[in-house]
Amino acid sequence: MTMMKAIVKARPEEGGLEFRDMPIPEPGPGEVLLKNKTVAICGTDLHIYNWDAWSQKRVSIPTVIGHEFASEVAEVGAGVTGINKGDYVSGEGHLVCGVCDNCRTGNGHVCYNWKGLGYDVDGAFREYFVMPAMNIWHNDPSTSPAYASIQDPLGNAVHTVFRADCVGKKVAVYGLGPVGLLAIAVLKTIGAAEIFAFGRSNEYRLQLAKELGAHHVVATKNTDPVEYIKQHTSGHGVDVAMEIAGTPQAITAAIKSVKMSGEVVLLGIPNSDVDVDIAADVVFRSVSIHGITGRRIWDSWMKMRGLLKAGMNVGPVITHEFNFDEYEKGFKLMQTGNCGKVVLNF
Amino acid sequence: MTMMKAIVKARPEEGGLEFRDMPIPEPGPGEVLLKNKTVAICGTDLHIYNWDAWSQKRVSIPTVIGHEFASEVAEVGAGVTGINKGDYVSGEGHLVCGVCDNCRTGNGHVCYNWKGLGYDVDGAFREYFVMPAMNIWHNDPSTSPAYASIQDPLGNAVHTVFRADCVGKKVAVYGLGPVGLLAIAVLKTIGAAEIFAFGRSNEYRLQLAKELGAHHVVATKNTDPVEYIKQHTSGHGVDVAMEIAGTPQAITAAIKSVKMSGEVVLLGIPNSDVDVDIAADVVFRSVSIHGITGRRIWDSWMKMRGLLKAGMNVGPVITHEFNFDEYEKGFKLMQTGNCGKVVLNF
Amino acid sequence: MTMMKAIVKARPEEGGLEFRDMPIPEPGPGEVLLKNKTVAICGTDLHIYNWDAWSQKRVSIPTVIGHEFASEVAEVGAGVTGINKGDYVSGEGHLVCGVCDNCRTGNGHVCYNWKGLGYDVDGAFREYFVMPAMNIWHNDPSTSPAYASIQDPLGNAVHTVFRADCVGKKVAVYGLGPVGLLAIAVLKTIGAAEIFAFGRSNEYRLQLAKELGAHHVVATKNTDPVEYIKQHTSGHGVDVAMEIAGTPQAITAAIKSVKMSGEVVLLGIPNSDVDVDIAADVVFRSVSIHGITGRRIWDSWMKMRGLLKAGMNVGPVITHEFNFDEYEKGFKLMQTGNCGKVVLNF
Amino acid sequence: MTMMKAIVKARPEEGGLEFRDMPIPEPGPGEVLLKNKTVAICGTDLHIYNWDAWSQKRVSIPTVIGHEFASEVAEVGAGVTGINKGDYVSGEGHLVCGVCDNCRTGNGHVCYNWKGLGYDVDGAFREYFVMPAMNIWHNDPSTSPAYASIQDPLGNAVHTVFRADCVGKKVAVYGLGPVGLLAIAVLKTIGAAEIFAFGRSNEYRLQLAKELGAHHVVATKNTDPVEYIKQHTSGHGVDVAMEIAGTPQAITAAIKSVKMSGEVVLLGIPNSDVDVDIAADVVFRSVSIHGITGRRIWDSWMKMRGLLKAGMNVGPVITHEFNFDEYEKGFKLMQTGNCGKVVLNF
Repeated sequence: MTMMKAIVKARPEEGGLEFRDMPIPEPGPGEVLLKNKTVAICGTDLHIYNWDAWSQKRVSIPTVIGHEFASEVAEVGAGVTGINKGDYVSGEGHLVCGVCDNCRTGNGHVCYNWKGLGYDVDGAFREYFVMPAMNIWHNDPSTSPAYASIQDPLGNAVHTVFRADCVGKKVAVYGLGPVGLLAIAVLKTIGAAEIFAFGRSNEYRLQLAKELGAHHVVATKNTDPVEYIKQHTSGHGVDVAMEIAGTPQAITAAIKSVKMSGEVVLLGIPNSDVDVDIAADVVFRSVSIHGITGRRIWDSWMKMRGLLKAGMNVGPVITHEFNFDEYEKGFKLMQTGNCGKVVLNF
Repeated sequence: MTMMKAIVKARPEEGGLEFRDMPIPEPGPGEVLLKNKTVAICGTDLHIYNWDAWSQKRVSIPTVIGHEFASEVAEVGAGVTGINKGDYVSGEGHLVCGVCDNCRTGNGHVCYNWKGLGYDVDGAFREYFVMPAMNIWHNDPSTSPAYASIQDPLGNAVHTVFRADCVGKKVAVYGLGPVGLLAIAVLKTIGAAEIFAFGRSNEYRLQLAKELGAHHVVATKNTDPVEYIKQHTSGHGVDVAMEIAGTPQAITAAIKSVKMSGEVVLLGIPNSDVDVDIAADVVFRSVSIHGITGRRIWDSWMKMRGLLKAGMNVGPVITHEFNFDEYEKGFKLMQTGNCGKVVLNF
Repeated sequence: MTMMKAIVKARPEEGGLEFRDMPIPEPGPGEVLLKNKTVAICGTDLHIYNWDAWSQKRVSIPTVIGHEFASEVAEVGAGVTGINKGDYVSGEGHLVCGVCDNCRTGNGHVCYNWKGLGYDVDGAFREYFVMPAMNIWHNDPSTSPAYASIQDPLGNAVHTVFRADCVGKKVAVYGLGPVGLLAIAVLKTIGAAEIFAFGRSNEYRLQLAKELGAHHVVATKNTDPVEYIKQHTSGHGVDVAMEIAGTPQAITAAIKSVKMSGEVVLLGIPNSDVDVDIAADVVFRSVSIHGITGRRIWDSWMKMRGLLKAGMNVGPVITHEFNFDEYEKGFKLMQTGNCGKVVLNF
Repeated sequence: MTMMKAIVKARPEEGGLEFRDMPIPEPGPGEVLLKNKTVAICGTDLHIYNWDAWSQKRVSIPTVIGHEFASEVAEVGAGVTGINKGDYVSGEGHLVCGVCDNCRTGNGHVCYNWKGLGYDVDGAFREYFVMPAMNIWHNDPSTSPAYASIQDPLGNAVHTVFRADCVGKKVAVYGLGPVGLLAIAVLKTIGAAEIFAFGRSNEYRLQLAKELGAHHVVATKNTDPVEYIKQHTSGHGVDVAMEIAGTPQAITAAIKSVKMSGEVVLLGIPNSDVDVDIAADVVFRSVSIHGITGRRIWDSWMKMRGLLKAGMNVGPVITHEFNFDEYEKGFKLMQTGNCGKVVLNF
């Protein structure tokens, strides 16, 4: 039995990762074995690294973490068609059932029975791993492994942006973590009229937002975002506000900063309930609020493919590349927030 | 100058209405003078009668109240075309500007400058009153004045129901006041698969919900609505929940009772903020929440016209008719809640 | 090896069916064996019976025909979950690939690689047959086998009606064959304001259209449908016209009979090209034309389930029931057109 | 009475324009008087210049032509609010009634009673002209008069592109006249994945299409567009095809070149009927065809404003500028086809 290296959440504590030897798995019927080229660290991985409340509740010890990857098909299981050894692929990290009412209508992102690669089951941060064939996405050969490895968060951004009507519209993005930055890249590509980017105070990320072309980049530490938007929109508010920070303050601001009949899209995960002034902010102003989870399978992926072909530039968001065995550096860096996406190369 | 009777909010207190003599107004350019046949008492009128917090803030003393009406055109102002003396009409009670960005795209319900007939300006509870020609709606001659007079709340119900995808779907209605009951009538007409109707405890209205054809009619005083829905939907929840009660409890229940990717429509006006578990109830479940105000002008009216032609039966909701000068009886009755719509005939 | 009876297109000529003995098949991995309760004769089967141009080109000799069925699961193949022996099921007759771009986004009805049960591969008109598990639909126990067996054409009607915005609207149906009649049943259930039903001359079917509740039932042999509609819609036309006859005349009339910005839905299959006045009828009037094929998988099925729960009455459309071995009677009857759906019981 | 110059279609023949003196009109109630800065020549003006079949039927002699303009408000009529002397404006050339069912639901582009400025009534090619206040659009001060004057055709292009789902998709544009070229500029701005531009043979315009960033620019004189598209889309076709040439050949090609469930948008006006293979090309392939007229009022204008703010570059399409009195040069040039938009400055 040949062995390989894997990053395992091995101890129930901050950090608590180990670089372990594991046997290379074999693909069953309907499955494929993947050999990784590049993987990327998700905010979810950081939650697990930090061992926060959500992780403690959701993740068993030990679990191989990770779910963002660009790989080569190493072996194909029985009954798999359309996928061949050597194919250059990434894949959807939500393992869905395919038979519930939501899956059966093109809404696998809200599968009643989904499991998450890298937290509900062993994940992608290892040299080889097995995936269901139905989760495989063929990458365009012209897409670099680094780009291809971040399609999971880019797909989140695409799903978030496309949940509302942003083309030619004024849009606010709250939260300038990697997904917020990617959302700005998407918005630039599809012709948002005016992009308002709000981060709390991290200069590194505010700078990235500028580089990506946001028209307004504002640190909320010093400036009230709702006031700022009102001043720059004749008092009416933006057409769409998206919250990708996960704080009650940003969620409240997002709701208050849209115009009458505006749309709010929520991807961030707050740690506590949010007080919403339903009467004044939602009902009387005819506002819509949309929660977002995952990527539309495969609609978000196809949109991503199309936007990359259209020239979407996500390069500035990939700020750091390490070797796979330097993963600890990547996590430490992400804790500081002075980075965009961090990828690990094999 | 000929005089007429009007119902005036004359004193800043509960009740505080007076039956006053006023001069019959004259229509200016672009306006029409209406002679009422039947008017109906809205929940908003009851708020003003009760002189609650909202009324005290919004309504000046004295103001002629009322905004639901079926009338005859008595006189036509200069420059008005397409409306003639003797026409049988009702009209939109939101006076919109027609020139803001929302008005200019068929979204007058979210006009930036709208005023409400009967609270921002003198209303319809008088023998004659003047309306802008652009607010006039021609009734079908086969529609009785009682039916025609309740198109404002029926239009609210239509707007609420059509904000989500209810045809062939499982739908929960929270709140069995007149608009909630009308929503059930709309849902029956458009083929909702299963209607769950929730009222707190009022037997009169629970009974009306049954009569209108709701499949489940449940008093929330005794039964938890979220649990009830889960039990009757394989644990998944309804496709759509609409809140027309205006209580934080019902809003919370509405959000929690939809399935993953379900839709929540909010028309009720709560008196306080609502604590929303954004992470668990909205984001992770991909739920959408829509605030509703007024009627789409004129889309909701046209849908109403079409549904009435299709045979929509709102008759059971009109439970009481009084003469115009018996209005005090109507208000007292509405305070008890043992009624549907109460109309006043001239 | 146990044997069973099957209806086989055995000779390349009108009629040309044989009642043959065949071995009962066995389900492979991912498949189920079904034992039929009731099957229904589709217009497609009649085309094959008549051996028209389409059939000669598409169907090999011999082929077991038929694709509308209500059955019991007799045996379950390896790897199938969620389906058990004894389950009461029907199923989707389009065998789709599940992996093309359309299938992967909930649009299996336009699968690039689909095959048709009963013409591309052996069909359902036999005592037992095998289906892919992913094509199985669980029927509600309260649905009779006759009703359950016609969900394929009812699903066509649902797909056609839901392709446009028909709720509360004026809708014309051209063609009163079984699917046209089912479309009327659907339109009644979802609150179409006014239904205009057009057949050429068949009194039996014109009568059925009346029974189903169409507001206008008109024989086009005597009356020009476009003129008729104009006269009953203030000269503007209907909101939606659906063509389920498959004649160039009806298609032209459908396009000409919608209002400016109206929608035309085409399900019927004409035998020749259609001359369309694109400038006057489509561009200047901002008309949309939608071609329809099959059923949305599984969206149309779910809508059907919901509408049946809402009380949709398709009973009058099922006009004749025969025993399975009396199939020849069924086909002869369908040739006369004096029937709705014809079903065959086992 | 002060006089001004106007371009008048004075004789029923090719050319037949005269540069006449006319009195400066006065604005009535609800109207404004405009003083032109720049006007642009529309294809419609060229039709009238050429005195083709359509013009002969539609246009009375004499008529002041023209409907594309960028102007300054010179005087404001009674009852007009929100528009002031000196404002920098353009406007919608379709004079709509505002009260028909379509106008009342935000669909003024399909007003039942609209009239066209410059052909149904005297137009904009004069120093001063009067417009209804409701037709006025305030330009952003940063938009040059040349840009501002072409918002009518740019709005056509916007309406056409937004009628289908083009963001991140493969789109074919048939016809490289000014509106076709503008459609390419719009598609680039909103992130179309791959743009296929087809002109017959005019090198000048094929070159402009390249300059605007179309990914494929093909002369159909030498290359079959349907074959070309199939070869570059794995045989499936494009997601969307738009026809802005107005020839039966291009319309047929557009329909045949979309993928299953693709969308076809038709803005071009063919001179004859088009033979459509409804069965093979529309029904079996679930294709949708949308006719387009005018601009959505004001939705298309607002989208334009947003896209211009997003950086849409329409500059290359404005290829020639003349003085107002050199109009004959402009028309002669447009007859050659070796130009994009031709504007006339005052």
